[in-house]
Amino acid sequence: MPDDITPVLLCGGNGTRLWPLSRKSYPKQFAQLIGSESLFQASARRFAGQGFAAPLVITGDPFRFVVTEQLAATELAPRAVVIEPEGRNTAPAVLAAALVLAAHDPQAVMLVAPSDHVVPDAAAFRAAVLAALPRARAGDLVTFGIAPVRAETGYGWLELAPGARADATEPQPLARFVEKPDAGRAAAMLAAGNFLWNAGIFLFSVPAILMAFRLHAPDMLAAVQRSVQGAVADLGFTRLLPEAWAGVPDISIDYAIMEKASNLVVMPYGAGWSDLGGWQAVWQESGPDSAGNVCSAHATAIDCHDTLLRSEAEGLELVAIGVEDIVAIAMPDAVLIVRKSDSQRVKEAVAVLKARGAAQATSFAVDHRPWGWFESLAVGERFQVKRIVVKPGAALSLQSHMHRSEHWIVVAGTAKITIDDQVRLISENQSVYIPLGAHHRMENPGKLPMVLIEVQTGAYLGEDDIIRYQDDYARK
Amino acid sequence: MPDDITPVLLCGGNGTRLWPLSRKSYPKQFAQLIGSESLFQASARRFAGQGFAAPLVITGDPFRFVVTEQLAATELAPRAVVIEPEGRNTAPAVLAAALVLAAHDPQAVMLVAPSDHVVPDAAAFRAAVLAALPRARAGDLVTFGIAPVRAETGYGWLELAPGARADATEPQPLARFVEKPDAGRAAAMLAAGNFLWNAGIFLFSVPAILMAFRLHAPDMLAAVQRSVQGAVADLGFTRLLPEAWAGVPDISIDYAIMEKASNLVVMPYGAGWSDLGGWQAVWQESGPDSAGNVCSAHATAIDCHDTLLRSEAEGLELVAIGVEDIVAIAMPDAVLIVRKSDSQRVKEAVAVLKARGAAQATSFAVDHRPWGWFESLAVGERFQVKRIVVKPGAALSLQSHMHRSEHWIVVAGTAKITIDDQVRLISENQSVYIPLGAHHRMENPGKLPMVLIEVQTGAYLGEDDIIRYQDDYARK
Repeated sequence: MPDDITPVLLCGGNGTRLWPLSRKSYPKQFAQLIGSESLFQASARRFAGQGFAAPLVITGDPFRFVVTEQLAATELAPRAVVIEPEGRNTAPAVLAAALVLAAHDPQAVMLVAPSDHVVPDAAAFRAAVLAALPRARAGDLVTFGIAPVRAETGYGWLELAPGARADATEPQPLARFVEKPDAGRAAAMLAAGNFLWNAGIFLFSVPAILMAFRLHAPDMLAAVQRSVQGAVADLGFTRLLPEAWAGVPDISIDYAIMEKASNLVVMPYGAGWSDLGGWQAVWQESGPDSAGNVCSAHATAIDCHDTLLRSEAEGLELVAIGVEDIVAIAMPDAVLIVRKSDSQRVKEAVAVLKARGAAQATSFAVDHRPWGWFESLAVGERFQVKRIVVKPGAALSLQSHMHRSEHWIVVAGTAKITIDDQVRLISENQSVYIPLGAHHRMENPGKLPMVLIEVQTGAYLGEDDIIRYQDDYARK
Repeated sequence: MPDDITPVLLCGGNGTRLWPLSRKSYPKQFAQLIGSESLFQASARRFAGQGFAAPLVITGDPFRFVVTEQLAATELAPRAVVIEPEGRNTAPAVLAAALVLAAHDPQAVMLVAPSDHVVPDAAAFRAAVLAALPRARAGDLVTFGIAPVRAETGYGWLELAPGARADATEPQPLARFVEKPDAGRAAAMLAAGNFLWNAGIFLFSVPAILMAFRLHAPDMLAAVQRSVQGAVADLGFTRLLPEAWAGVPDISIDYAIMEKASNLVVMPYGAGWSDLGGWQAVWQESGPDSAGNVCSAHATAIDCHDTLLRSEAEGLELVAIGVEDIVAIAMPDAVLIVRKSDSQRVKEAVAVLKARGAAQATSFAVDHRPWGWFESLAVGERFQVKRIVVKPGAALSLQSHMHRSEHWIVVAGTAKITIDDQVRLISENQSVYIPLGAHHRMENPGKLPMVLIEVQTGAYLGEDDIIRYQDDYARK
């Protein structure tokens, strides 16, 4: 419907605070942290249905196929997936989204929301958005203010104007934005009762936000406009022009616009919200048992209190005995143990590993690609074993290697294999050999995922020993 | 030399207290817990050199090839490796060792020692053994008494006779054995000064210990004698007769003999000893740093105190932040977190996992075999990928499978492969296919370990789908 609200899902993030489950290569919005869907999927679903148009997603290049794959699983088609050449905080992302929307629907109303938040009562939140819609249509910038439940120093706060009500069911006048406070100030605001948390969720019309940028950030508007005008369509993605984007400042929408604008209102929301800003929040949102423990499958607490114990792999048993106030996250390549009340310090672990050159700081063993995924099962002196899973209908690029030959054994499904000028189908329990230098390609012509074990042999086995001749996903 | 002392290394154990590094399938004496050798290797080395003959090892069937492999690495050849049909505590093991020795050297002097203890000053311990030798030759049963450093309730204690000195450098008269005390009694003994820990290490002559069994356990003597007389030599192992062993009681040498014998003396030893009876002891013996932390490679402590952090795999990073008094042992298939002062409770973790049917309770992903080892790299619905490493000169059995076919890809070294009536050599980067039902065998004819990736396909992939036609290691 032309009057529907367009959700704009901000989907960047660098994944430090929930390491090791969230890493730069696959940040937290894509992980199954709470429930059976990713936070990103839950966010897309939250803003779907009556009154909402298809979402616009703004993300980084490495995540574009994860976005389409996860959206496809929810059966929600995106209106657009906009790719930022580099992450530049929220102001340029919101502005780019507004300009992309303006090209097709100059009067559109956009709901801007991070895609890594938890909102247990989605219907209540949708109702709050719809309640704020008239003010957004009227040209105001609506920010959502969360009823605070603790003296949080990690968020900005919103001060209501005199006479405004923190538990109102329609937008209220706002006195001002308050930057992240110290503990004393946070406690005072919690006690005062006329302060709300700033959740970074906004509702406004395209004309209203463009006007605000014109007033408060005209240089940024010009640069982002060039980047959007020069954007190219690429396999369904909207790729912003990198040259123009390079000059865009790294700045939040709060700082660039909201703290300066005068046409602001706040929509109070009190039915539960979390930004899962650390493991302590995950523990809280997961619903601890009577002893205060949260245990995943394959995690066992013996005589423990107030723990979050997560095993993130089928074949990995985590057992804790006699510990208290502990978060333990176990993965086959990385284990984190942190005092729950210290869980904001996880970034120190990432920093230490990064300094030591450990890949676990930023990457996973499983690598997501447009055609599916692969993982390294074993690495030896002159060999590597991988499990490769190719989605139905998908194909890897036509490629060759300078330094390695490969054995492929299909263990599930059927593969269509090209080696130089030969094409053949190989099925479960059949194998082929790819000599060094041969042009080769692997496709899954079937209806089910195809699983293949690849054994590489050679003196150099890096991912960069690849020459691509043709690629369905326009990779170089 | 005929007068040399024969070390008798007791090498059973079920590996519960140091789970997950120590498991029933590969107990703690074989693990690298302290330093660069296993405890078993360090024990064999401790009692080697001037005055000591080649050791007799008494172990269980599953460990026989680990014993020979680890001894080979120390370049110490065993006098005999005796295999108990089943573990029956220390009395039957010591008696069997005495009877095996008696057949060749009726006057031999034997030093009985568990193979999972830590003795930092091996030379000092050897000196203590040699100082006690005259009393052993004279027919006394010498027990070694460790100078106590805490009110330990987990050990038995030894009470010196009136007038004996706890710091003497030669054997002292013993008043009596004290069973594991309660905390109050332990504190009193520690304070009294005339008590030592019973370490379960003994020195005596074969005639003296056989006489003691004749006096105090004549039924056991008869049963073990039948088992030794019926023993068979099998690939260099001495296999006790299982039928006779079935009637042997499960009883310690302390209880069966030492608490009853009158010809006992104690050799005090005060230069450091630990039985590594739990993770707390490993922490202690590993030499904590100034903050009380012990970190292995790939383990990082950030603002921690009094922790033992061990990563047991190259590709596994363990990071702890802000925790105290914690032991964390990380392996790719199991992670243990336990309050250090609770580390005797590790057996509860094993019990929980066993009840749940988790293989990690008792087994490792790596499986040691006489010909080398293998590990499962990935298991899927109808496939499994293994890495197989075959020692130079070794061969797997000639076998066939009813439910699976196999692809083998050699990634290091050269394999001699038999498939039905064909024999061929395949080298790095070559592969073969073993059809379901084919008789096949894999050998390593080379001088270096051969590494092979095996991809199995089939509806049933258990280790028990194997029909053996010929086996160098006499397995069924």
